[in-house]
Amino acid sequence: MNLLGTSLVPEPAPDEGSSTFRAVSPTTGESLDPAFHEATEATVNRAVHAAAAAFDEYRRTSPERRAVFLRAVADEISALGDLLISRASAETGLPEARLTGERGRTVGQLRLFADVVEESSWVGARIDTALPERTPVPRPDLRRMLVPLGPVGVFAASNFPLAFSVAGGDTASALAAGCPVVLKAHPAHPGTSELTARALLRAAEQTGMPKGVFTLLQGQSHEVGLSLVRHPLIRAIGFTGSLRGGRALYDAAAARPEPIPVYAEMGSVNPVFLLPSALRERADEIAQGLAGSITLGVGQFCTNPGVVVAARGPELDTFLKRLAERISAVPAGPMLYAGICSGYRQGVEALRANPAVEVVAEAADTDVGERLGRAAVFKTRATAFMEQPELRQEVFGPSSLVVVTEDPAETLEVARSLEGQLTATIHGTEEDLHSQRELVELLVQRAGRLIFNGYPTGVEVSHAMQHGGPYPATTAPSTTSVGTAAIERFARPVTYQDFPEAVLPVELRDANERGIWRMVNGELTRDPIRPRD
Amino acid sequence: MNLLGTSLVPEPAPDEGSSTFRAVSPTTGESLDPAFHEATEATVNRAVHAAAAAFDEYRRTSPERRAVFLRAVADEISALGDLLISRASAETGLPEARLTGERGRTVGQLRLFADVVEESSWVGARIDTALPERTPVPRPDLRRMLVPLGPVGVFAASNFPLAFSVAGGDTASALAAGCPVVLKAHPAHPGTSELTARALLRAAEQTGMPKGVFTLLQGQSHEVGLSLVRHPLIRAIGFTGSLRGGRALYDAAAARPEPIPVYAEMGSVNPVFLLPSALRERADEIAQGLAGSITLGVGQFCTNPGVVVAARGPELDTFLKRLAERISAVPAGPMLYAGICSGYRQGVEALRANPAVEVVAEAADTDVGERLGRAAVFKTRATAFMEQPELRQEVFGPSSLVVVTEDPAETLEVARSLEGQLTATIHGTEEDLHSQRELVELLVQRAGRLIFNGYPTGVEVSHAMQHGGPYPATTAPSTTSVGTAAIERFARPVTYQDFPEAVLPVELRDANERGIWRMVNGELTRDPIRPRD
Repeated sequence: MNLLGTSLVPEPAPDEGSSTFRAVSPTTGESLDPAFHEATEATVNRAVHAAAAAFDEYRRTSPERRAVFLRAVADEISALGDLLISRASAETGLPEARLTGERGRTVGQLRLFADVVEESSWVGARIDTALPERTPVPRPDLRRMLVPLGPVGVFAASNFPLAFSVAGGDTASALAAGCPVVLKAHPAHPGTSELTARALLRAAEQTGMPKGVFTLLQGQSHEVGLSLVRHPLIRAIGFTGSLRGGRALYDAAAARPEPIPVYAEMGSVNPVFLLPSALRERADEIAQGLAGSITLGVGQFCTNPGVVVAARGPELDTFLKRLAERISAVPAGPMLYAGICSGYRQGVEALRANPAVEVVAEAADTDVGERLGRAAVFKTRATAFMEQPELRQEVFGPSSLVVVTEDPAETLEVARSLEGQLTATIHGTEEDLHSQRELVELLVQRAGRLIFNGYPTGVEVSHAMQHGGPYPATTAPSTTSVGTAAIERFARPVTYQDFPEAVLPVELRDANERGIWRMVNGELTRDPIRPRD
Repeated sequence: MNLLGTSLVPEPAPDEGSSTFRAVSPTTGESLDPAFHEATEATVNRAVHAAAAAFDEYRRTSPERRAVFLRAVADEISALGDLLISRASAETGLPEARLTGERGRTVGQLRLFADVVEESSWVGARIDTALPERTPVPRPDLRRMLVPLGPVGVFAASNFPLAFSVAGGDTASALAAGCPVVLKAHPAHPGTSELTARALLRAAEQTGMPKGVFTLLQGQSHEVGLSLVRHPLIRAIGFTGSLRGGRALYDAAAARPEPIPVYAEMGSVNPVFLLPSALRERADEIAQGLAGSITLGVGQFCTNPGVVVAARGPELDTFLKRLAERISAVPAGPMLYAGICSGYRQGVEALRANPAVEVVAEAADTDVGERLGRAAVFKTRATAFMEQPELRQEVFGPSSLVVVTEDPAETLEVARSLEGQLTATIHGTEEDLHSQRELVELLVQRAGRLIFNGYPTGVEVSHAMQHGGPYPATTAPSTTSVGTAAIERFARPVTYQDFPEAVLPVELRDANERGIWRMVNGELTRDPIRPRD
């Protein structure tokens, strides 16, 4: 399949910008063919207008048809076979086995949202039946359900070229909710993006979806993204990436004449608390697990454990020795693109240069060149960690900072000093959780997910997942960007008052033909409502 | 009971500002005793710190204790008796009968939230049980529920001195969710605010709630409110008021180092579409109903019908004649405070001076002085309405603008030109709704609540109510500020991964002691989970 190297919008693009860019292989440093044309403001405008035109029809497609569409997207992505995996590997440096697993997650996610849409209870129907005899005033008949927001702009992430990218979680949940998607591809993997987008568009055509239900914008300038966020017809933004990038989009959206929600997942340091009992009983096991989590995918996960908190003592010394052995043995790996690699190096250099910080371990000093990330573990005292805000900032890559506390009280102080997190982890015994109740409570207030005796990397796509957290982990702590609850981000409630049965959406009619869960006069039920008199 | 005239925060306030203000009687124009001290930045800071200190304990109170507290607040407010009603009437000019009804709504709302908290399913528990045998990787045990956000700042509205004020919907839902409230009173009714706040504080003390769970700030300067929004320990804002006020708070919150959500309900023009069949069959009835809705409470409702859309023809002429008779007969009434009254007059004068606008009716030209609002109805052509954005803006008070269209196509264009609305209403037959499907769909996209053959004023406090809508009706279209779903605004989800049963919150334990609805492996159930192996 030849790559076109353009944005994918319904109308031909005579004004497509002359400015181009190319993907660069993280393993060889070579530029890859073809050149990709940077979307212009006119391209963005055309994409959004196509999405707005599609919305009128798409929002009214039946749940069954939307489910068929989502499943067809999954099938078409699977049908790309090795072509997709090899292009993704060439553009990102990620191993084919990892990408094959990520593809499985991506198509599984699309199918899970197809199931959710088909089942239909996600619309959260609530019905209060009329009380015509009530005094002093009768109660009207009120029926409430979620309806789709409108065209959504989604920004793909660099670190998951499939699962958080073109047909990733944001796209799947927005399409499931009934919202057309204008997708801003990440410039580090434009070929992967084009392949996925064309698979998605084939599925849309096969299943009779309106033109404009999905469009792809290529570009590496900030202007393309900002034009998308500022476009008056865009109703919400999904984003996965850096704090700087996410905050810039959030600020642009908040400054619009009509502000719109920005669901930005921006990562965090994902603190891991190692309680004394855990170090005493499982030092070697935890050293192995943590080294794996720190260096998985060359450390390029939002849930990478960037801070480890433990109390001073011989157990910690033993543990650090074990961790150092593991970390030193991890070969340097290619990072996603030059910007990420140089950002990582700067972060590591800053730690090394900090007089309050010691090196615990570094991977072997091979000639890592411009593109490889080398694992490293540092340590510092809790006092320094709490005094220096820069030590609490994320260094995106395979490194971690061990914060050494003097006693349990100082451990609590460290927890209190943390900003919002995607995850927080505690290693210890069940008794520790009881005696350290305060620590658990502090972490509940700061994180979206709490993990006991596990590792933060690895985010399950399921009903009970929460992938979010207070700022700066995200800009929308009451939402998740992974799992089935993610669909709720792209909808809002509407109440119909005293509408005749026949005009109501099927989900709100007495008969409950779809058999969905509804709150009827305050009680959840799948039963129909007996016919109105 | 003597009024203290101060903010109500736990510690004595030696630094309380020397600047004072007084309520003014809308009926007599006289200043009322006592003088109220303007909160200083130090007062705000003390209130927020007290709230943050209270949060640690308050978030862990059991649902039963929180319900007892909310019911005690309702009882204490009821126990104020005539004192509250007469002070509220003196400060707002609203009749005692109306205020008695509003008090019923306020205490009913507190008791409804007590029921919701006690029942506990609102936490939205979701459990995915572990799949230890799954390949390639086991699934961990994941358990998700809502937890309270933290201290919330609530801005009271002027037009509902009880139901959207000190112990109104925002306060009731935030306290129900487990969030302490710092309440910025509206300066137009400081005495009513103090009485209500003291009742609330008595209930807090009686039921053993932590000091700081509720504090009251008095003040008429913008600085008090902005200090509250900018305070780093405040986690969310609730607001009911003007677009200008709400947007200023939204902008301040978005510009914080850590942005926080602002749930601002800012009103709208609440368009009413009168289809030809309705005018043919029920002209007199609709004229009566609409005149009542336009002038209810001197037009000072967020859901006041500010725009009426109807097609040219003899039926419309007849209807306008009937409406004019009704409107002319309505006596001018006292408006809430001088600023609202002068804003209303300016709005009416601008309509009168607009060459594209005609006067349909005005209430008798009595000497209305500085404080009374006189009902008025204007009309204009659809072309002018669509060309002049100022005609689509809310004029807060007892007036409405009739927009005359040439045909059904132009009616659709008018609907398309509307911004976000709290409500939209259609009068017609069931057949009209079928033939005017497009109109219904356009209004679904623009409003939070759609009403058939009714009037927008009168907002039921129930499970299925949606009081919200796209900007500029609110800053958070996916939430409601009235009804039981309002509690969700003040909470966020947290997932516990692989936590031992005994450490989990009771709502997430296998046994489901509280018997709440939970989504277990994708299925809603009240059943317990069989013990883990």
